[in-house]
Amino acid sequence: MVSMVADEKSQPQLLSKKAACNSHGQDSSYFLGWEEYEKNPYDPVSNPGGIIQMGLAENQLSFDLLESWLEANPDALGLRRGGASVFRELALFQDYHGMPAFKNALARFMSEQRGYRVAFDPSNIVLTAGATSANEALMFCLADHGDAFLIPTPYYPGFDRDLKWRTGAEIVPVHCTSANGFRLTRAALDDAFRRAQKRRLRVKGVLITNPSNPLGTTSPRADLEMLLDFVAARGIHLVSDEIYSGTAFAAPGFVSVLEVLAARGASNAAAADLSERVHVVYSLSKDLGLPGFRVGAIYSSNAGVVSAATKMSSFGLVSSQTQHLLASLLGDKEFTRKYITENTRRIKERRDQLVEGLRGIGIECLESNAGLFCWVRMGNLMTSQSFEGEMELWKKVVFEVGLNISPGSSCHCREPGWFRVCFANMSAKTLDVALQRLADFAEANGGCKGGGAPARRRLAGGPARTMSCPVGRFSWANRLTPGSADRKAER
Amino acid sequence: MVSMVADEKSQPQLLSKKAACNSHGQDSSYFLGWEEYEKNPYDPVSNPGGIIQMGLAENQLSFDLLESWLEANPDALGLRRGGASVFRELALFQDYHGMPAFKNALARFMSEQRGYRVAFDPSNIVLTAGATSANEALMFCLADHGDAFLIPTPYYPGFDRDLKWRTGAEIVPVHCTSANGFRLTRAALDDAFRRAQKRRLRVKGVLITNPSNPLGTTSPRADLEMLLDFVAARGIHLVSDEIYSGTAFAAPGFVSVLEVLAARGASNAAAADLSERVHVVYSLSKDLGLPGFRVGAIYSSNAGVVSAATKMSSFGLVSSQTQHLLASLLGDKEFTRKYITENTRRIKERRDQLVEGLRGIGIECLESNAGLFCWVRMGNLMTSQSFEGEMELWKKVVFEVGLNISPGSSCHCREPGWFRVCFANMSAKTLDVALQRLADFAEANGGCKGGGAPARRRLAGGPARTMSCPVGRFSWANRLTPGSADRKAER
Repeated sequence: MVSMVADEKSQPQLLSKKAACNSHGQDSSYFLGWEEYEKNPYDPVSNPGGIIQMGLAENQLSFDLLESWLEANPDALGLRRGGASVFRELALFQDYHGMPAFKNALARFMSEQRGYRVAFDPSNIVLTAGATSANEALMFCLADHGDAFLIPTPYYPGFDRDLKWRTGAEIVPVHCTSANGFRLTRAALDDAFRRAQKRRLRVKGVLITNPSNPLGTTSPRADLEMLLDFVAARGIHLVSDEIYSGTAFAAPGFVSVLEVLAARGASNAAAADLSERVHVVYSLSKDLGLPGFRVGAIYSSNAGVVSAATKMSSFGLVSSQTQHLLASLLGDKEFTRKYITENTRRIKERRDQLVEGLRGIGIECLESNAGLFCWVRMGNLMTSQSFEGEMELWKKVVFEVGLNISPGSSCHCREPGWFRVCFANMSAKTLDVALQRLADFAEANGGCKGGGAPARRRLAGGPARTMSCPVGRFSWANRLTPGSADRKAER
Repeated sequence: MVSMVADEKSQPQLLSKKAACNSHGQDSSYFLGWEEYEKNPYDPVSNPGGIIQMGLAENQLSFDLLESWLEANPDALGLRRGGASVFRELALFQDYHGMPAFKNALARFMSEQRGYRVAFDPSNIVLTAGATSANEALMFCLADHGDAFLIPTPYYPGFDRDLKWRTGAEIVPVHCTSANGFRLTRAALDDAFRRAQKRRLRVKGVLITNPSNPLGTTSPRADLEMLLDFVAARGIHLVSDEIYSGTAFAAPGFVSVLEVLAARGASNAAAADLSERVHVVYSLSKDLGLPGFRVGAIYSSNAGVVSAATKMSSFGLVSSQTQHLLASLLGDKEFTRKYITENTRRIKERRDQLVEGLRGIGIECLESNAGLFCWVRMGNLMTSQSFEGEMELWKKVVFEVGLNISPGSSCHCREPGWFRVCFANMSAKTLDVALQRLADFAEANGGCKGGGAPARRRLAGGPARTMSCPVGRFSWANRLTPGSADRKAER
């Protein structure tokens, strides 16, 4: 027994380095804010003083549409087809190629969301248990340990876990700034590429989110052309995470990189070669508001990627029960058409409520046309224009104001003072409560610094425009911006 | 344009090494047999000459019990609780800690399957999208790139993909042989450990399947004691993949390593330390026959493993729709009690049908008491006692006889002549067809070599015992054997 204990003392490291260290990136303020929220969640009746969750990009605006459909289509939930049970078939279905009916319906739905300007071949779809898994699988397929992907900032905080933790890949930030509304430029890409080379990292690709999380903006077509030229010239990959594609609610609308690619034609060799290096990630978590069902997908025209990712999908298949339900739902064209129209209308309405409310307090947002959040500038509430000042304000907003928002630093934003504020995971009433709390806080802190009038006492009572507090030196000339990074599975 | 093409020619390796090479292990005959089956699947009416799938460890024997329960409990499928819709709650539920109701029910069910001799703490359960994912996540938690796990042979062919491919971990086989009915010995473990050291691999643990896939046997308590002593002395981990625990149909029954561990008591420091290095993998794919629903789990008392694996589970969460259904199903104690009893009775009945049928042809099986397959010795049908002979016979059995069985070589068995033959994924009638085909083949090939009488022409017509063909020199003294390796998600 003594020798056993002695042996144990000299035992090798008990866990792997991955498990033992915190490279999963979940210690960022983004995740810590959630923890605080969970300790004290707001409820209008049972806990009206609790924290309001504004750090969660959930879409709760259109559940009534889904519920009505489910009621009218009982076979979808009942594991039936034409009234007859398909329980046995579904219980056993574990082909990692996915259910053909579901993949066909998903391909059509993805095409519909792109105005039918892009056709999706179901055999190029790899199903995954959420986009988290899709992004990681793509990294496993494209990057070896120590290889790098360039990602425009600000980007989704979860990427540090999703893309790097288990794969050993590296992220090199492409710094975007407010000077041009956080739009991606060739110069910023070239700069990031050079920095990667300096670190002796082999750059394997660029990853963008379009629409951008956290910016809430779609990538302009010109930026996508520029990106394609960049990856073509460098001989590297482009991953476009398009999980918010169905949230685009205003002009100029969503343009997929696949649409731009298709317009180049596959007739010349360079374009054909390029099309093998462009990969899209999709999910039903945001557009349909179904994160609990864990449905993600990779779309790629690269046979090697499809083959390897399909094998990898055995580590995270979609439940056949869920595939059956969604094959039916997405197969109903009449429903999806109505859903997309009404859902984006409601997102815009809620976005407007947030933007106008914040403007009333003297707080400006980057002009958005997509997403379930706004990119909000709160520098005028900070005691110093630094990341320390940002953290100080963030803690006040979480603990004193009772709003869990996400600081820009957690999104690797290079400029202090920006926050991602989500608006679609709560009722309009709760959003009003949140805005009122912020108004009270701004007032208590002397209103907006930089020349604004003190914040209005009551927001819900009427138009808040009179309180507008200019952000000052910041130019909004280029409000509609480019690709940046992020995604889903918020926990 | 010219420079772009030139750049592309000098581009770095397009895909990662993982994606570009075949280290996923799916080129083995185990998987190739499936491909053949899929090209030409047997159907009694539409394709009576097709290949019968005997390479798939599915449990189709008790679906009627599940279907009856679903009919009587419509809320489970209908996303309702107490008649009221919980659709919104489920659609949004993506807490990677899992639904408490489901984890509680699963913990109780796992305990029930172990005769309530082991208690499971729900907070030590990490849910994963199937056992494939559970095993990989454990490897990520326990082993760094190049670290090794010892696995007794023969083991589940999928482990080469599941445990090694993306993690970079290595498998060092622990060679078990027919001399003692493939039972695990301390000598074999020590030998494997030495071989690992010779290869300069750091051994991080032992992984067993109990009940064993492909042997169809449970680990005797004495072997588990020996294993625990081994990992205790070496200061390494033990992973026990127990996804077939609910299939044990005969004495001496299933004993979990957790039961043996508990009996040692956690009072002394060595035992407490050891309990942090013992991890169990479970799944509902085999015991409930629900591989399509993708429900797996890790059970560990190691807080570091639970924490890291929980974060990793975001790459493969279980659909909340499925968690809701199964929380209800497994929460029904009356149902699970009846199900376990009846399901194991049916498995035994089908196993007996296979074993007796094979005996009638002159083919012997390792005596089994669990699993959805038998470990079958077919050396007497081979033209040479070599792996070439085994492959030759395997090809004949797949292409001429029309049965997809799995050759022992794909399970890393060191002795040629063994095959895994599954019996629970087909009707009794189809099993009869398969046995008849094999009888015809044996007869056409001069019957059993080694002294047996020619194979009986018709099996279904009556008892086949008269055709018994002794396997010869092989001793069956130690038929009930030890831990070996394998698992699930058969594709």
